Amino acid sequence: MDKENEVLENSVGVVCPKVFKYSRSFEFVSGAVIEGFELVYETYGKLNSDRSNAVLVCHALSGNHHAAGYYSPSDKKPGWWDSAIGPNKPIDTNNFFVVSVNNLGGCDGSTGPGSVDPKSNQCYGFTFPIVTVIDWVRSQALLTLHLGVEQWCAVVGGSLGGMQALQWAIDYPDKIRHAVVIASAAKLSAQNIAFNEVARQAIKADLDFCDGAYRAQNKIPRHGLRLARMLGHITYLSDEGMGSKFGRDLYDDKLKYNFESEFQIESYLRYQGDKFASSFDANTYLLMTKALDYFDPAAEFSGSLSHALSHVSTKFLVISFSSDWRFSPRRSKEIVNALIHEKKQVTYVEIDTQHGHDSFLMSIPDYFKVFSAYMDQLEIGGRV
Amino acid sequence: MDKENEVLENSVGVVCPKVFKYSRSFEFVSGAVIEGFELVYETYGKLNSDRSNAVLVCHALSGNHHAAGYYSPSDKKPGWWDSAIGPNKPIDTNNFFVVSVNNLGGCDGSTGPGSVDPKSNQCYGFTFPIVTVIDWVRSQALLTLHLGVEQWCAVVGGSLGGMQALQWAIDYPDKIRHAVVIASAAKLSAQNIAFNEVARQAIKADLDFCDGAYRAQNKIPRHGLRLARMLGHITYLSDEGMGSKFGRDLYDDKLKYNFESEFQIESYLRYQGDKFASSFDANTYLLMTKALDYFDPAAEFSGSLSHALSHVSTKFLVISFSSDWRFSPRRSKEIVNALIHEKKQVTYVEIDTQHGHDSFLMSIPDYFKVFSAYMDQLEIGGRV
Repeated sequence: MDKENEVLENSVGVVCPKVFKYSRSFEFVSGAVIEGFELVYETYGKLNSDRSNAVLVCHALSGNHHAAGYYSPSDKKPGWWDSAIGPNKPIDTNNFFVVSVNNLGGCDGSTGPGSVDPKSNQCYGFTFPIVTVIDWVRSQALLTLHLGVEQWCAVVGGSLGGMQALQWAIDYPDKIRHAVVIASAAKLSAQNIAFNEVARQAIKADLDFCDGAYRAQNKIPRHGLRLARMLGHITYLSDEGMGSKFGRDLYDDKLKYNFESEFQIESYLRYQGDKFASSFDANTYLLMTKALDYFDPAAEFSGSLSHALSHVSTKFLVISFSSDWRFSPRRSKEIVNALIHEKKQVTYVEIDTQHGHDSFLMSIPDYFKVFSAYMDQLEIGGRV
Repeated sequence: MDKENEVLENSVGVVCPKVFKYSRSFEFVSGAVIEGFELVYETYGKLNSDRSNAVLVCHALSGNHHAAGYYSPSDKKPGWWDSAIGPNKPIDTNNFFVVSVNNLGGCDGSTGPGSVDPKSNQCYGFTFPIVTVIDWVRSQALLTLHLGVEQWCAVVGGSLGGMQALQWAIDYPDKIRHAVVIASAAKLSAQNIAFNEVARQAIKADLDFCDGAYRAQNKIPRHGLRLARMLGHITYLSDEGMGSKFGRDLYDDKLKYNFESEFQIESYLRYQGDKFASSFDANTYLLMTKALDYFDPAAEFSGSLSHALSHVSTKFLVISFSSDWRFSPRRSKEIVNALIHEKKQVTYVEIDTQHGHDSFLMSIPDYFKVFSAYMDQLEIGGRV
């Protein structure tokens, strides 16, 4: 077997995005209305005969629909969660029919700020409606209908993706049997919002942001995006993990006493920022951070998450990571405790690791063992 | 007693900055040389007859020489550490002669980027030498000579100020009897450096930074400074403290679903950022963050802080705050353990508080009790 085939053998192989087109008007939580939308999505594995093996994967802040596989046999980089989705992986495509969707407001094919607003024939840009987790779940429910899936065997996501899984359980209790909520939280803390706000201000302060109309002016607010990503990156790693990986290692042999990168961590962050700034859309970044901020299913129940979950029939797997300080284990336990309070079925595991919030994207053995074990015991009816 | 006098009674009263002019050339650690400098400083209390009661107060990132008292009877805002310095306060001016200096590279009167470089007759701007804690301590030692103080009874500082106290003990062991190191660390972690780097990049990405020559072009990189301060502010508070103070409290009565401030924490950060951007110098901010990054007295002892401290004769008080995640208690304990390893005299206290790194500036009762008790027992010879 040559190397290309070997890589493909370990994955779902070559995949091709599909488009779901919704042609009726769609009202957001904010009250804003758009006249139809498109969602780009991918599927891996096969829907079984009684349609009981469908798993929805929800992406986080900067993710998209390309969660697994490759776009060609020579493609070097697989989807963002290829470690977790594929044959004999935690979300085993020998058993499951997996759907992964780029969310509304995204920048990878689904209708978002870069799409043309049919009302103005201009890009939506900054005028794209504020989108919330509730809106995403509702648009995903429309895709679900289109796919002929009556009930998700599981909805799975990390971070902002976990919030969508939680919202699915709340909004469509009869359409989701299991929710896998990883490195997530039931709402942002003031500190979480504060970091998002700094990222937004960094983007908006970039002169090339042009009040959100940068596309029309052929500009990209690279500096702002770069800063937002650098900052985000700090919160995805742990102090401990950064210390192990970079410590105070110098970039060159010795100190230069100037403003170039003196330490490895500086050049690493600059690199991460630059890479992101040339691939992600600024308006989408703003929208994603706002979706995070607004998420708070307990709000309409006087702050009681238990009340918000009282009618839920979904079973939960909740996973947190010891060194995650963006959404610490304490935040996962809030979800777990609310579920227990309502006598719901929940499995909770805190994984001991120094990889911080980013852990949810990594194939950490203890984490994947738990994840696989949970997925493997899910009841699936008809044959694939 | 009218209100103005009441305020003055509780403080060192009206103070007036003085200037120390050093006219010989001064070489920085980096190798750069400047032809003389000025340090602006203030003094509170009186030097006693045998000059044994002098206390040096060192400032942190955005501090200056105005640590206590008022500039006029109608002045509403006292110096930045007025809570700790004054009659019957932890640094009791009935007993101590207190000196507070604006550091080299500062923007409040001491020679810094805003000063005129005699070589070019232009502002130093971005060409001001990179300054380190070692340079500061050496310049402070020159001021010490000028003041006729042979030995500091104590050198005291929080955060970056604590690093100066530590450096004093290392570089001038016979000139400092006590070091009070509060909410500090023996070196920055990768995460600490990372936050500094994002702040620097924010300032440098501002078009009005003009490669550091903004003064010559009559501009101020407000956006960059604002972002740097917003970010810094998050690291000065704790997640817990921010949660208690702001939580998810809304800015208006209800959500607006737009990019204005939705949550109190957003408007608070914007306000803090704006205030700072109109009062602090960008080049100084860059220099101060670099001084933090470079501080690492153990580096030339193969990373052994114990070795760096082996010759020290100073006695230490080290204070940390439980919720400080910028310089956590663990970082203070590194200093304490190195001192204990070398059989030095050290008192260590961790104060339980939710106020994060900012605690060192606050009059938290347990903190001030310990601080006062330590200062009160210092041996002072001659009468004031």
